[in-house]
Amino acid sequence: MREQLLAAEKVKAIDWREDALYLLDQRALPRQESWLACGTAAAVAEAIAGMVVRGAQAIGVSAAYGVVLAARARHAQGGDWRAALEADFAVLAAARPTAANLCWALNRMRERLQRLKSGEDPLRALEAEAAAIHLSDREANLTMAQLGAELIRKHQGNLQTVLTHGNAGALATGGFGTALGVIRAAHLEGMVEHVYADETRPWLQGSRLTAWELLHENIPVSVIADSAAAHMMRTKGITWVIVGADRIAANGDVAGKIGTYQLAVAAMHHAVRFMVVAPSSSIDMDTDSGDDILLEERDVRELLDLGGQPLAAEAGAFNPVFDITPADLIDAIVTEKGIVERPDTARLAQLMSRKHLH
Amino acid sequence: MREQLLAAEKVKAIDWREDALYLLDQRALPRQESWLACGTAAAVAEAIAGMVVRGAQAIGVSAAYGVVLAARARHAQGGDWRAALEADFAVLAAARPTAANLCWALNRMRERLQRLKSGEDPLRALEAEAAAIHLSDREANLTMAQLGAELIRKHQGNLQTVLTHGNAGALATGGFGTALGVIRAAHLEGMVEHVYADETRPWLQGSRLTAWELLHENIPVSVIADSAAAHMMRTKGITWVIVGADRIAANGDVAGKIGTYQLAVAAMHHAVRFMVVAPSSSIDMDTDSGDDILLEERDVRELLDLGGQPLAAEAGAFNPVFDITPADLIDAIVTEKGIVERPDTARLAQLMSRKHLH
Repeated sequence: MREQLLAAEKVKAIDWREDALYLLDQRALPRQESWLACGTAAAVAEAIAGMVVRGAQAIGVSAAYGVVLAARARHAQGGDWRAALEADFAVLAAARPTAANLCWALNRMRERLQRLKSGEDPLRALEAEAAAIHLSDREANLTMAQLGAELIRKHQGNLQTVLTHGNAGALATGGFGTALGVIRAAHLEGMVEHVYADETRPWLQGSRLTAWELLHENIPVSVIADSAAAHMMRTKGITWVIVGADRIAANGDVAGKIGTYQLAVAAMHHAVRFMVVAPSSSIDMDTDSGDDILLEERDVRELLDLGGQPLAAEAGAFNPVFDITPADLIDAIVTEKGIVERPDTARLAQLMSRKHLH
Repeated sequence: MREQLLAAEKVKAIDWREDALYLLDQRALPRQESWLACGTAAAVAEAIAGMVVRGAQAIGVSAAYGVVLAARARHAQGGDWRAALEADFAVLAAARPTAANLCWALNRMRERLQRLKSGEDPLRALEAEAAAIHLSDREANLTMAQLGAELIRKHQGNLQTVLTHGNAGALATGGFGTALGVIRAAHLEGMVEHVYADETRPWLQGSRLTAWELLHENIPVSVIADSAAAHMMRTKGITWVIVGADRIAANGDVAGKIGTYQLAVAAMHHAVRFMVVAPSSSIDMDTDSGDDILLEERDVRELLDLGGQPLAAEAGAFNPVFDITPADLIDAIVTEKGIVERPDTARLAQLMSRKHLH
């Protein structure tokens, strides 16, 4: 499976080169595949805030490379460059508030700096750490893809009709994707009959990105309006909802793309299984429950304008881009450390205490 | 209340004049208020199919005027013009399949022709019948507005936070609207704190039309993404979901704008009351249940293009524009004949056997 997934890989969104971080501009997809070079931490932060790159893990990986760029600049300036670097950490951390992976990656970079051995080149060590974060994210996704596919096989065997929301794909991660990684693996194993992709307003992660990723790999996909999901569960024999996450609280509550909660409610009503796929870097054991997670709101123009045109009435609007799905609506959280079925505080704590099992 | 509603009326979508039916082009709203003159039944049918005019009752009223235009043309041709007129009935009936009101209005026009008295001018009789359909729809909406507002007062008294979907407003009817009629009346009575309007993809009836109607009357409204509705129920204290209907089966199942069902599921989960407002012309006693209702699918470009631009990936798509909400998710169906709480076959039959009580 690992080899098959590697062989089938077509989509890549983050490319680290010597001089800069290159990001596939996700604002322009699928019409245009253009790459943006970020040569400074500020440019990386701007790319994250502006959604050139999006997806919890992809912004974590990008921020790690942002620290490398920042460290080079601060180091060249001399003086107490490590103290000065804290300003860059702060700028990167503030780029988007909800995804746990952003802070997690920044913390890993800061910790790496703290455990520098004497004589070690700090810039090389940081670059190696960012590359390791990137690589381990890819590896985690490969592991989750296999675990998720096994879970599907265990529960219902053969042909699945899957619904997904947002884009928890290669574009959202260091590679392969989380929810889409599971869907890819299940498809390679002949278990996927069809995938329905919520278009995912307002940013259209589904119709622009998820549909594009799956098309690339000839996985049968149909875009639907977000509001059609319950109707599809009622009429089209959906067997699984599979989604990603931006932050998971210690009790298993999940912050995900707006609409994830509504899907979970509909899935419960229709007895459709609900799987969240996210690496352990998304799990925030310092946050007790979903109530404690800050949910980002974005500019209402994302909602009121379509294709750059002000199509809506000039009314007020409210544009929360994440919501909380309580743990009791979730059948399974799939991480690279293993699967937690019917998640709760005890089960998540047990998972997080494990060393990698896979 | 009736006088207040009449005094507050600002939006009108259908204007019958001597020579033609004038329709406010809802495709261009709110950016542009332009009127389209339809001088033939074929033009009216095209306007209905193309959504120049939309909303179950508005297309019923429009089709009735379409019959007047058709009868004039057939009558001028001479011969067995009443037999020839059947072709026009068929063209109008086929314009959109789901709304009950379209067939209901056409049947009323046909019946009027069948009970012509000798010496009666058939063209004048038909014109008067179409005007009566239009007028009685307005009257029904005024009645429902008051009944719905009373229902709100009865259940929860004071300040309400209301969620609506699609556009069941003045634009969708002969005037005042169904769901928006109730919201207008409740607002006039000081019971509405805030209205959240689902944008209602793909056609944006919510962000383009409902928000525009409510803005016109200074009713506080915020547009939200359709997928945010459950999150709003969880976090914003929504007390009522109030929506329209396109066809109601004999058992109380409701065909409504796609997404209505998903809202009803979410409302049930959050113990939010769910009100459907529709005139008795929407109730189809010949259809046993929602399973027997034909649900229109429309061109997938409505979903894949935004603001005329092909923003989505060139994936397949599925664009059902109506769904079925089972009766057991509905707290009340408000009609001009009265209110049916916890609708079922017996209660709807009882309602339909009534003469107008209001």
